[in-house]
This record gives sequence, C-alpha cells and structure tokens, in this order.
Amino acid sequence: MAQLNAESLPDLSSGAVFLATGGGGDPYVALLSAQQALAEHGGVELIAVDELDDDAFVAAIGSVGAPTASLELLPSTDDPAKALAVFEKHVGRKLDAVVSFEIGGGNSLIPLIAVAGRGIPVVDGDGMGRALPEAQMMTYPIAGIPSTPAVALDYLGNIATFSTDSTETYERHIRAMAQAMGGMITTVEHPMSGKQLKSSVVPGTVSFATGIGRILRRNRGNAPRILAPLRKAFAGSMYGEPKHLFTGKVTDYTSAIIGGYDIGKAMIETFDGSGPKLEIEVKNEYLLARIDGQVAASVPDLIIILDFETSTPINAERLRYGQRVTVLGIACPDFYRSQKALARVSPRNFGFNIDYTPLENLTAHHQPLPPAPSGPHSHS
Amino acid sequence: MAQLNAESLPDLSSGAVFLATGGGGDPYVALLSAQQALAEHGGVELIAVDELDDDAFVAAIGSVGAPTASLELLPSTDDPAKALAVFEKHVGRKLDAVVSFEIGGGNSLIPLIAVAGRGIPVVDGDGMGRALPEAQMMTYPIAGIPSTPAVALDYLGNIATFSTDSTETYERHIRAMAQAMGGMITTVEHPMSGKQLKSSVVPGTVSFATGIGRILRRNRGNAPRILAPLRKAFAGSMYGEPKHLFTGKVTDYTSAIIGGYDIGKAMIETFDGSGPKLEIEVKNEYLLARIDGQVAASVPDLIIILDFETSTPINAERLRYGQRVTVLGIACPDFYRSQKALARVSPRNFGFNIDYTPLENLTAHHQPLPPAPSGPHSHS
Repeated sequence: MAQLNAESLPDLSSGAVFLATGGGGDPYVALLSAQQALAEHGGVELIAVDELDDDAFVAAIGSVGAPTASLELLPSTDDPAKALAVFEKHVGRKLDAVVSFEIGGGNSLIPLIAVAGRGIPVVDGDGMGRALPEAQMMTYPIAGIPSTPAVALDYLGNIATFSTDSTETYERHIRAMAQAMGGMITTVEHPMSGKQLKSSVVPGTVSFATGIGRILRRNRGNAPRILAPLRKAFAGSMYGEPKHLFTGKVTDYTSAIIGGYDIGKAMIETFDGSGPKLEIEVKNEYLLARIDGQVAASVPDLIIILDFETSTPINAERLRYGQRVTVLGIACPDFYRSQKALARVSPRNFGFNIDYTPLENLTAHHQPLPPAPSGPHSHS
Repeated sequence: MAQLNAESLPDLSSGAVFLATGGGGDPYVALLSAQQALAEHGGVELIAVDELDDDAFVAAIGSVGAPTASLELLPSTDDPAKALAVFEKHVGRKLDAVVSFEIGGGNSLIPLIAVAGRGIPVVDGDGMGRALPEAQMMTYPIAGIPSTPAVALDYLGNIATFSTDSTETYERHIRAMAQAMGGMITTVEHPMSGKQLKSSVVPGTVSFATGIGRILRRNRGNAPRILAPLRKAFAGSMYGEPKHLFTGKVTDYTSAIIGGYDIGKAMIETFDGSGPKLEIEVKNEYLLARIDGQVAASVPDLIIILDFETSTPINAERLRYGQRVTVLGIACPDFYRSQKALARVSPRNFGFNIDYTPLENLTAHHQPLPPAPSGPHSHS
C-alpha cells in the first residue's frame, strides 16, 4: 500500500485540476486543509483497488455544489471527517475505506482530509476519471450501485440524510440541499462493498493524477513545451493521447449560478484575432468545444484549459477575460464510451442537440500547435 | 378522552379551512383519506392538552409545500403513517401522541390519517391556531422547542432527514426539499415532551374547528346570515369576535409558485363596482387586507374569505375570478401578539412595510355588512 503525505499533495491537486476538465471545485483551500491534516496526523494510506477486500465497506465522499461558491464559502478542515462520522452513525457501520467522487480539483483531496488520523485508507481510484456535474454520471450508479443511504453536511454543521431508489432523484435532492445550505456541501454516499467498488471504480487515478501534477511542475513553462511529456505520461493509460485543440486568448466569458450549477460560455480567439474561434460550453465542467461552430471535442471526452505561459490547468471558476490559454482534448476511459454510460453523459444529457462523436474522429477542426514562444521556463 | 370518527371529519375539515385563513392546503383528498382511514381502523382518540403526560413523547406532523401543488399531486393515504414510522426509526423512539402543525385545511386531518389503527391519540390543539406559511412561525419553535430531528417523505417514498439548531434554517431546508420532491411533502418534526407541548401548543383547536364546521353546516346560506352564529361560537374562545371587512366580487386574482410558496394578490370590488376596493396579499395564506390602500386586517390576525352565497370558506388556491365573497377578520389568540411571536409573524416578516396593528384598532375602514339577499338557505 502506498502512502500519501503532505509533500505529495500539490502534485495530486494540480494533476487533479488537469483531469477535472474545469470542474471539481477550486483546490486552494482543500489543498491547505489536506496539507495541514496530513502534517498533523501523518500520511494517509492509498490502497490499490485490487488490494481491497471484497467485503470491505466503502463510501464515496466529496463536495457538491456550484464550484464558484467554494471560492467564497470556505470549508472547515473538520467537515470531511465530521461528514464521515455522521454517515457512519446514520448507517450504523464503520467504513473500511473511502473513495473519491471524482478525481477533480478539491474533490480529489476531500477523502484524504476525511480519513487523516482515522487509520483507514483512501482508494486509488475515483467515480469519474475526471469531473462531471451530476451524481448519476458517476461510474458507481452507472454500474448499478444505489446512491443512498447518504448524508450531507454544511459548513455550519447542519445535517441532512437521503434515501431514494433513483440516482436522478438523489441528484435533485442533494442539489436542492446544496442550494439551501449555502451553495456547497460535503456528502458521503454510494455505500458499497469492496466487490462493488471493483466493478465500478475508475482505478489508479489518484496516483495517475499525482504523476500528471509532477509533470506539470517539472515542465512548468509554456503550453507548447508541455505536450510531449504529457503525451508520454498518458501513453499506456486508460485515457487517449492529449491533443491540441486551440491556443488563443479568452475574449468573452459569461458565467452564472443557475439551478445550483455554474453555467457559462467562453469564447477564445487566436492571439492576433485572425482565423477561427473556439467556443466552450460550461456546466461546472468544460463540456463542449466548438471551433467556428464545428464540434472539436465533447463530453465525456476531456476538455482541458491550460494557462498558455505556465501550463497551469485552469478551473472554470478561475477562467477570466484576457487569459492566454491552450485547450487540449483527451479521449475518456472506455467505461464512459459504453452505451450504459453514454445514456447519462452524452452531449444530449446536457441539452446539446448533438450525438457524441469520439474525439479521435473530430480532428479535422483541431488547430495546429503554435511554436513555443520565448519566455521563462523552469525545470526542477 | 374524546373520540373523533369518520362522521365528524367533514365538520373538522370545513372549520379548519375557516381557521386556515386561506392556507393549510386543500382538504378534499385529505378528507377522503381520513374518512377511509377512520372507517377502516375505527375512531381516533383526541386527547386534551392537560390530559397528556408531562413525559409523553410527541411530534408535529403535516404537509409542507405550495398548497396549489396539493390540487394536482395527490397524496397517498399511507404517507402520514409511513412518515411517522420513518421518524420513529430515525429517532429510535416510539411516539405517544401526535399533534398538528396548524389547524388549517388538510393539515388538520394529516395527524388523524397518521395514527389511524396505531392506538395513539391526536392532541386537541395545534402549533398555529390558524395556518401560517413558514415553520419558524409555529408556536413550538417560538416557545424554544428545536425543530429537528425531523423527517420528510414524498409521495414516491423518498426520504430525507434534517438536523439543525435553527428553525429558520430548518424552514429553508424543508422548503428546498418540498420543491425538489415535487412541491408537497409530509414532515414529522418538533419532537417534544408533553410538558414542552403544554408550554407551546394552541389548545383545543381541533374540537373548536369541528364546532365551527358544525355551525357552517347548520347555517349553510349566505354570508350575512352566518355572522351572528359565528360570533356566538367565537365568544369566550381565545380568538376575537369575527368582524365583517368587505363583501364583493373577485375582480383580479394573480397567483404564482415562487420559492416553493403560493404568492398571490386578489382584488375584490363591491357587487355594483362602486365604492371602495379590497386588496388581499397572499403567501399561502391571506396575510394582509387593504381597503383603498388602508390596512383593514393583517397577519397574525385572521383574514377569512367566505363564499357569499353558501358561507363556505375558500382556500387561496381555490379563489377564482368572479367569485362573490365576504371577507372577515378575527383577532388572533394572544400568544401571537406577544413580542416573541410578533418578531416572527408581523407584516414586516412577510416583506410588508408596516407595523402590526391589532384588528380592533383598524375598524375605521371596515365596510358595513350588506343585507342578506334572498336565495336558498338550508338549515339542517
């Protein structure tokens, strides 16, 4: 069993923001909380999926809400552990391990904060292999695992519990409570056996994200230079090869909290304003990228926006007018290309009137990578 | 201990709609459900407040939501009993009695449906002495009784539970869940001892409402004829004397479900269109009556709208353009004129920029009662 310690967290956090495709929540406060928790209580064991006992009792933990809320409504370091305790009391059973909703931003760190000092491991895997905005889009419910019993905790210690047969209903209920509880809550949900987890989890994503974060740190510099080492890291992974979709500057960005989600749209133009434009649709995550109206990448494939100068991945709630960015597309793990998964995560599930086309069949409109500009380029 | 049987329910229902001041939910389906439950399981014991043991375990039960939803989203007869069972499992203790949120419309009948066949009594009293739209406006929380642990059940059997120190927060949470659960839910809440109940309940309102319903039935006929027997019934009660505010026809009625409440406004003009106009503001209940802009009655005093021809009390969600109506005002029980209560139920709590003035100090604008017209007048 591997050990995660405070020192490895910045890489995990940054790699998780990369995989989050814009969502998952801003990791800044979660990273500070996780570093403090692990510095105080020692490292947390990261258990590989196949090391887990079939009869282990596991639940998924994470934050639910509009990511922009997490920029203003600061969570307490104690919330995740409290949420676990509330959950265990509610179901009358102690957990043997916890797993992440999604390997995205802050949500990759919540499980670590929750178990620090508890002596139970975090599973090396997650329920999305990326971030997605709704509960029923997780691999656990797609594989048939009930979402409830589940609990929600807000930053004031208020508690709600949920019981329903339908994950779509569960999503509606937690979303309503997230709105009523100030915009952001911690939930513990999808209680499952080790065996159920093995049948549904996206494996290895915590260590994979940490590796991606390491590459981003060691190759810090402008985006054209990061693509080669990134491709090397993704080779042999369950994801496809990172593809360059577009490089330019953000010339429009609108965002609003609607129905408890961040809903937005970004327009990105080339640096000199000539040539095509890329438009990105946001629902917590980057869902659809169109170049001059033609689909360049769509959910469930990953759309990643990097800061052009530093290759830092940018969460949707941090996207700003004038930023110079590079947009990448990466084919999602095969699980999300199954009929069962696409029934919940295709572009149509988000209201876009198009069928899903795999990223690799959409290359016609992808822009060539511009040459690397001169500028600072650290290598540590 | 008195007994309530299926035969007494129409009077209770109609008297409760009278006291509901427009809210409390349409009683039609609840009445059928209660009649069926009591016909099947026998009568339900109605326990007087002072007969209750100080250490009895009691909780309040009722429906929460926008009353208009109850016209379309029909509840199941089993819901109240199921909600009690879910609550007892959640708190790990059996109830000795249940009490109503509010002696209003359908909510006066929910406790009876819940305990039919269970052998536990319903308390002769309620938490409002009328109907009011928000949880923190009940006498129980005003007297300091915590709202949670509490449970909510929807018509599909989905369950949520709540835990919070603040009744205002509790109200926000159940309202959000009522919206997410289809508009109307059954909640069990405000667990309390017999002693706590005695310190907070509005006593005797179930039997009082039944008496009012009996008067409405026996004196069925136009509104000018009902006032004398009503005044007799209210004399010596904890309410004031029924006052005639206005008689006319509904010339405007707008209503919308906003934030999980029915929000509306009614304009009532004299039959011949001459003279003053009465405007009524609605938030689930009739909250404020103004005659040509001058306050004629306001929450927490009771505003009642009767069908002019039959004296049938009309719920807000049944108010329609063209109805001929008589509007009455009745001073609320003293409890709601205390500083502590007015801090939660004055006109300002509903967004009206006026202080509360007791009904009896507002008589200047009340209209004289028109003469009784000829027409059908049954007396049974």
